[in-house]
Amino acid sequence: MAGSTFGKNFRVTTWGESHGPALGAVIDGCPAGLPLTSEDIQSYLDRRKPGTSSLTTSRSESDTVEILSGVYEGVTTGCPISLMIRNTSQHSKDYGNLRTTFRPGHADLCFEEKYGIRDHRGGGRSSGRETAARVAAGAIAAKALKTLGIEIHAVTASIGNVTVPAELLDNLDNASLKTAYSLHSVMPDKSLDDAATELITKCREEKDSVGGSIYCTVTGMPVGIGEPVFDKLDATLSHAIFSIGAVKAVEIGDGIAVSELNGSENNDRMRAADEGKVSFETNHAGGILGGMSSSAPIKIKAYFKPTPSIFRPQETVCKNENGKFESTELTIEGRHDPVIVPRAVVVVECMTAITVFDALLENMGSKMEHLKKIY
Amino acid sequence: MAGSTFGKNFRVTTWGESHGPALGAVIDGCPAGLPLTSEDIQSYLDRRKPGTSSLTTSRSESDTVEILSGVYEGVTTGCPISLMIRNTSQHSKDYGNLRTTFRPGHADLCFEEKYGIRDHRGGGRSSGRETAARVAAGAIAAKALKTLGIEIHAVTASIGNVTVPAELLDNLDNASLKTAYSLHSVMPDKSLDDAATELITKCREEKDSVGGSIYCTVTGMPVGIGEPVFDKLDATLSHAIFSIGAVKAVEIGDGIAVSELNGSENNDRMRAADEGKVSFETNHAGGILGGMSSSAPIKIKAYFKPTPSIFRPQETVCKNENGKFESTELTIEGRHDPVIVPRAVVVVECMTAITVFDALLENMGSKMEHLKKIY
Amino acid sequence: MAGSTFGKNFRVTTWGESHGPALGAVIDGCPAGLPLTSEDIQSYLDRRKPGTSSLTTSRSESDTVEILSGVYEGVTTGCPISLMIRNTSQHSKDYGNLRTTFRPGHADLCFEEKYGIRDHRGGGRSSGRETAARVAAGAIAAKALKTLGIEIHAVTASIGNVTVPAELLDNLDNASLKTAYSLHSVMPDKSLDDAATELITKCREEKDSVGGSIYCTVTGMPVGIGEPVFDKLDATLSHAIFSIGAVKAVEIGDGIAVSELNGSENNDRMRAADEGKVSFETNHAGGILGGMSSSAPIKIKAYFKPTPSIFRPQETVCKNENGKFESTELTIEGRHDPVIVPRAVVVVECMTAITVFDALLENMGSKMEHLKKIY
Amino acid sequence: MAGSTFGKNFRVTTWGESHGPALGAVIDGCPAGLPLTSEDIQSYLDRRKPGTSSLTTSRSESDTVEILSGVYEGVTTGCPISLMIRNTSQHSKDYGNLRTTFRPGHADLCFEEKYGIRDHRGGGRSSGRETAARVAAGAIAAKALKTLGIEIHAVTASIGNVTVPAELLDNLDNASLKTAYSLHSVMPDKSLDDAATELITKCREEKDSVGGSIYCTVTGMPVGIGEPVFDKLDATLSHAIFSIGAVKAVEIGDGIAVSELNGSENNDRMRAADEGKVSFETNHAGGILGGMSSSAPIKIKAYFKPTPSIFRPQETVCKNENGKFESTELTIEGRHDPVIVPRAVVVVECMTAITVFDALLENMGSKMEHLKKIY
Repeated sequence: MAGSTFGKNFRVTTWGESHGPALGAVIDGCPAGLPLTSEDIQSYLDRRKPGTSSLTTSRSESDTVEILSGVYEGVTTGCPISLMIRNTSQHSKDYGNLRTTFRPGHADLCFEEKYGIRDHRGGGRSSGRETAARVAAGAIAAKALKTLGIEIHAVTASIGNVTVPAELLDNLDNASLKTAYSLHSVMPDKSLDDAATELITKCREEKDSVGGSIYCTVTGMPVGIGEPVFDKLDATLSHAIFSIGAVKAVEIGDGIAVSELNGSENNDRMRAADEGKVSFETNHAGGILGGMSSSAPIKIKAYFKPTPSIFRPQETVCKNENGKFESTELTIEGRHDPVIVPRAVVVVECMTAITVFDALLENMGSKMEHLKKIY
Repeated sequence: MAGSTFGKNFRVTTWGESHGPALGAVIDGCPAGLPLTSEDIQSYLDRRKPGTSSLTTSRSESDTVEILSGVYEGVTTGCPISLMIRNTSQHSKDYGNLRTTFRPGHADLCFEEKYGIRDHRGGGRSSGRETAARVAAGAIAAKALKTLGIEIHAVTASIGNVTVPAELLDNLDNASLKTAYSLHSVMPDKSLDDAATELITKCREEKDSVGGSIYCTVTGMPVGIGEPVFDKLDATLSHAIFSIGAVKAVEIGDGIAVSELNGSENNDRMRAADEGKVSFETNHAGGILGGMSSSAPIKIKAYFKPTPSIFRPQETVCKNENGKFESTELTIEGRHDPVIVPRAVVVVECMTAITVFDALLENMGSKMEHLKKIY
Repeated sequence: MAGSTFGKNFRVTTWGESHGPALGAVIDGCPAGLPLTSEDIQSYLDRRKPGTSSLTTSRSESDTVEILSGVYEGVTTGCPISLMIRNTSQHSKDYGNLRTTFRPGHADLCFEEKYGIRDHRGGGRSSGRETAARVAAGAIAAKALKTLGIEIHAVTASIGNVTVPAELLDNLDNASLKTAYSLHSVMPDKSLDDAATELITKCREEKDSVGGSIYCTVTGMPVGIGEPVFDKLDATLSHAIFSIGAVKAVEIGDGIAVSELNGSENNDRMRAADEGKVSFETNHAGGILGGMSSSAPIKIKAYFKPTPSIFRPQETVCKNENGKFESTELTIEGRHDPVIVPRAVVVVECMTAITVFDALLENMGSKMEHLKKIY
Repeated sequence: MAGSTFGKNFRVTTWGESHGPALGAVIDGCPAGLPLTSEDIQSYLDRRKPGTSSLTTSRSESDTVEILSGVYEGVTTGCPISLMIRNTSQHSKDYGNLRTTFRPGHADLCFEEKYGIRDHRGGGRSSGRETAARVAAGAIAAKALKTLGIEIHAVTASIGNVTVPAELLDNLDNASLKTAYSLHSVMPDKSLDDAATELITKCREEKDSVGGSIYCTVTGMPVGIGEPVFDKLDATLSHAIFSIGAVKAVEIGDGIAVSELNGSENNDRMRAADEGKVSFETNHAGGILGGMSSSAPIKIKAYFKPTPSIFRPQETVCKNENGKFESTELTIEGRHDPVIVPRAVVVVECMTAITVFDALLENMGSKMEHLKKIY
């Protein structure tokens, strides 16, 4: 039942439907003493905002966040932080035919059967708009992490068959990130963005959609973050990423490729490095060993299915007036992105931030030595 | 800190180290009234047991389970079920050189840095032996699910480049499952098993190891199991699967492939079917829509890295007597599987069973109608 | 850190400070299919509202609740229900001297030392206003319980030494409840209310305050609700009640008195009753045996300390400009109830409702028989 | 369903029935680096052991604890600690008549109706023997707290009408504690012990039982431990204490008495003290303000009902062969303490230790300043 909270220590609860009056998040467990303004959050929300290009839905929401609690004179107080975003551009009448008809590839049928009732307007709770609340919460986690020297960055890794080469992803720097954030595709290269744009435009013309993938990396991690044996860092990260709609696969490090490798190829060699640290000569593991951070950069890849809302006629089912299923044909109307990926980049980044910050808080009690520093 | 419990309603807590006196699990929240004997559990444990073939570690453990509580006169009572397996074949002296040296690809370094102390013998808590406790718990979940008409089956999908064709995986039946469970590789085909055996033998000769993948399917699911928005069924399944050591990727349904598809290809058409049900003409989604079961078979693939313990000399680090890291070379001794996958098949099956049963319990409160059936 | 959520299944998260823009609650896990309007909630909020009499604070808040999500066409959808109440009557300037001075009997010092920062205006997060959010959430639980035949009622049991006789509490009926809810003291008897009013008036004149107690009863409970061994129903109820500010003692059934009784006096005799039920000839246990409901009415008593805000000069400490504590004298200004109890009655009722409904949801998985009714 | 785990960070899961093969606890989340031997635990278990006097049950259990995991070379490793105590002195045949008859004042009826099945032997899961597992876990929490300068002590405060004066409780020192632990009643005074012994002996002769109360105090607490607004320290302490069988009331500080006081009497004056601390001139609040520790000693009182097992004939119900309730008369046999209190003293102490240590771990993330000390 209660599945709208994520995290054990930095606990994020989201609420709201696509066409309700508002949506938001309550963050409980944010440590006190973090400087925080609504601008910190807004800059993340703006990266997710619809209506910024011809490639995305034409729904135009300002997505202005309001901080309702937990911040006093620009600093977090340790009390729950309540964030709210008013919905302003609902076109609910576009969805009239979806009250009794179930869109293929969507959650509609499952909501109907699970709850016996659903808000069908714009997907209701299962709308991508819910991720605005995640982004607002994640912006806070990201800011807290930054004060501890931990940075998280995500970019688009592929759209359809337009794929960013691994070398580019492995070597993201400020320049390539800046490029990515300035381009509609959020790919870290202009010519790839051109190819992706062409592909998406074709999809739109053909009333179709396309999938893609996102790459996310975390740098500056201390060693040992993540909790064996069930709350390993890769396990909670994949939980976080798979909780984003449309994700169908998650890889850590080299992911699927390692299943064809030998141990002698896949093991990352360790060497003693400066300042009492350990360096890894390769990073097949993607920064996680035994479910804990190894200090090497964490590497995550998330794969998204194509937007299920397409504008072609589709075979599906509806419920008739007797509550029985009937086969029917549906042509979806309204406003929908032909590809989810570019707007999901910041969502992946934010879910990663929430997960990593929660894990850092959890690790504080790992040894008596830590307690003695505080008490 | 506390990461050894999985599940919210059917709560499994595992404990134990590879070379301690015993390991076990406590299952809290198992409904009363389920017939249960130690044989029910033993049959699952036997599928995971080491020492059953030349392909696996020669450590020979009987893995005999003892039920210490929660079962009365052969039926669960609703009280916590405590299961214990005594360790009997520890060769701790094999691990003497690992007290201060950290094995590449293993959790050693992370344990040391996180806790400041570790039981290095046989990997301690991070040993694959810990999964015996998961299998014992999962056997109970699987039995409970079976009484509700839900079945879970897993087989090996690949070892190195020896891959079971998709058609075979999509059409697992009693005969092919029986074949799989009779073969060392746990592949559902004798000739593929021959090829895999050859590959593994070669690995062993070359003091190397190899990765692989596991396919798991769940049939008989009701619609709507899984909790939006964070505890979606795919999210909790991936959490469960990634919590198994050595997993580096998880796919649901067509997984990564969907990222290159168009929506018109990927959407599964729905049709009204007999008995008031809905049928899906394809199953790209792998039985999960919007994070809830759709009633189509659930399809999961887990990808495992090669066993990090290989018998070649490897570059790594140790801690010297001053507690500083030094670069060194290590040659691992002891008993290790050259491939983890065949023994992990039942672990994937059991973690899936635990996750699905937990989700079924969670869903009981989804609507007032359900409460009125009970109160 | 994260302490603003209560409940495992019906999960209530409250947020908001006394002098922030708003306060509210998110309820995750409310079953779908419950008819719900803002009037249902408002009627509970109105019972807690300040400014309704000369006996309470003169802060005048309309406490109008807005339902922001989780309800569609007047029925709960199973999605999180977000409730918001705007603050409209903050007089923050009244609290200027409390920025660095810590009020005796209040949470001020603890907040300062725990978080290093606090919103001192009106008590910030520790203000009694936070309970408005609990009442809003509890109104939903109470409505759900009522549809299952379970009713919860609370009244004032004492104010200072003005005490409602046990017989009156044991025999609350619609008439006496109606009386209670019409009187400022919320006592179920007009002459006792007169005595209490006199006492409170005297307190106010003497710039002092007084304590009291609240009685709450739950009828219509099925047998067996509550989870041994740690989440017994009395344990979770006392957790819920003690989480209300100013509570210093909780009794179940005869409470403290039983510690002087013999077993032969205290054991409640059971007899076979109509309709396959069991009746109890007495109810010393207060409806809970072994931590589970017995079907007899549940009886809870909560004892509240006098309002710590009094208008006499008090010895206390402040922090000087170097961050050091100094002894000082404080005279509190602003608006404060001379007794908390009458306004806390509905809070006790609502926390009880939340706890009981959560326990009913938890109990759904108690036996396989229940699962078979649903799946 | 799953109610056998207590704590969020220092998580204690108990398992086992009175007449099963064993009982135990798994402690997940104990920080690494705490020296721990089985003797540390045994010394607490010995304080709870049955059979040590004519005043207690004659069941003679050695209650020898075995540490099965989580401790390596005498130090905790951060991995789950599994503790087991074998049952050795079960006389299950004593309980034959209780298979279908429900003892007044016991959990029998509720277990039967909740689960549809129960292990009736010796009370099964609801037996006081379950508390041995709590004591074993609590001994670890108490040892960890001691290394941080926090001490917890409990004594008997009353048995029937034999009551330890408040001055004696308020001034417990090593001498009076030593006295208490040497006496059967666990009262800190020999003459009171004599009076209590006389009372208990009379109860036994009259085939009756008697109630009593326990006082527990925590010293050395830092300021600010406990989590507003629902997991206040008094709320979690009362949850912990009420989860012990037979508890019917809990008081913090002056408890019930404050409900008759004025604010001017009840507020504890604060003064600036040495070393940058604050001192309290009185301690009516019992060391907790706003649900957080104030640094003054924490004072808890728990009230226990008389042992429900008495040897007189009692009116009750049984289930006949058709599963219907029938009125009947029952005379209980077996071994039962005429008063629970003396053996429960260490249980109260241990549940307090678990709660306080869990709260200390939770508080580690209260401010960014704490994180910067560790990361």
